[in-house]
Amino acid sequence: MASIFTKIINREIPGHIVAEDDDFIAFLDIMPLVKGHVLVVPKREVDYIFDLEDQELAGLHVFAKKVAKAIDQSVKCTRVGVAVIGLEVPHVHVHLVPLNTMDDINFTRPKLKLGEDEMKTIAANIKDKLV
Amino acid sequence: MASIFTKIINREIPGHIVAEDDDFIAFLDIMPLVKGHVLVVPKREVDYIFDLEDQELAGLHVFAKKVAKAIDQSVKCTRVGVAVIGLEVPHVHVHLVPLNTMDDINFTRPKLKLGEDEMKTIAANIKDKLV
Repeated sequence: MASIFTKIINREIPGHIVAEDDDFIAFLDIMPLVKGHVLVVPKREVDYIFDLEDQELAGLHVFAKKVAKAIDQSVKCTRVGVAVIGLEVPHVHVHLVPLNTMDDINFTRPKLKLGEDEMKTIAANIKDKLV
Repeated sequence: MASIFTKIINREIPGHIVAEDDDFIAFLDIMPLVKGHVLVVPKREVDYIFDLEDQELAGLHVFAKKVAKAIDQSVKCTRVGVAVIGLEVPHVHVHLVPLNTMDDINFTRPKLKLGEDEMKTIAANIKDKLV
């Protein structure tokens, strides 16, 4: 069965997409740790990041860098942190999390619930800073 | 002033090194979240991961993949998680953390203090599984 991320890629379910190319996509995490928390996902559905081919892994991180630079410019933060955990959705996803403190990237704490309008604004602001 | 990681690279201070090539090095975190927690570091001293050149960023992650596969085979875990935070030491470092639960990669919880002999054994076991 297609993962929830594949469904976003295929536009079967909505997502706040901020960047996309032939191989990768980035969209807002719907349960963000902080405002501007983005997931970067390879379109090929692979469960474990270290099962990606070297070239695909490299491409994923170079794509993530572009997105991170746009987050840096549109979200108030000291820097953008990176996390790959993968104990839940079985489709590789790199978390890009705008950080001010160490606790901002603590996945055990309660997630934010943002309204649809705020999510749209955050996504538009990030997209606007992509180069 | 050279970062603490540059001092490990230059053998000015000791480190439990598990892998090294011309551009990158991996050694045990001396304040591990769990046993087998490794740091992967570019030898070039750059503060922020997204200031690395694309090729360097790609190389760092491909190098980290090799190390993660060795951790997978030598440390009891569901998978190896990845985190880059960078609010402390100003020299890029990718955390590779053997995961069983989400809390294993929570950087706000107390760190382990392992004895020198145990650190040596963990490093040797990881090194032994490198291909």
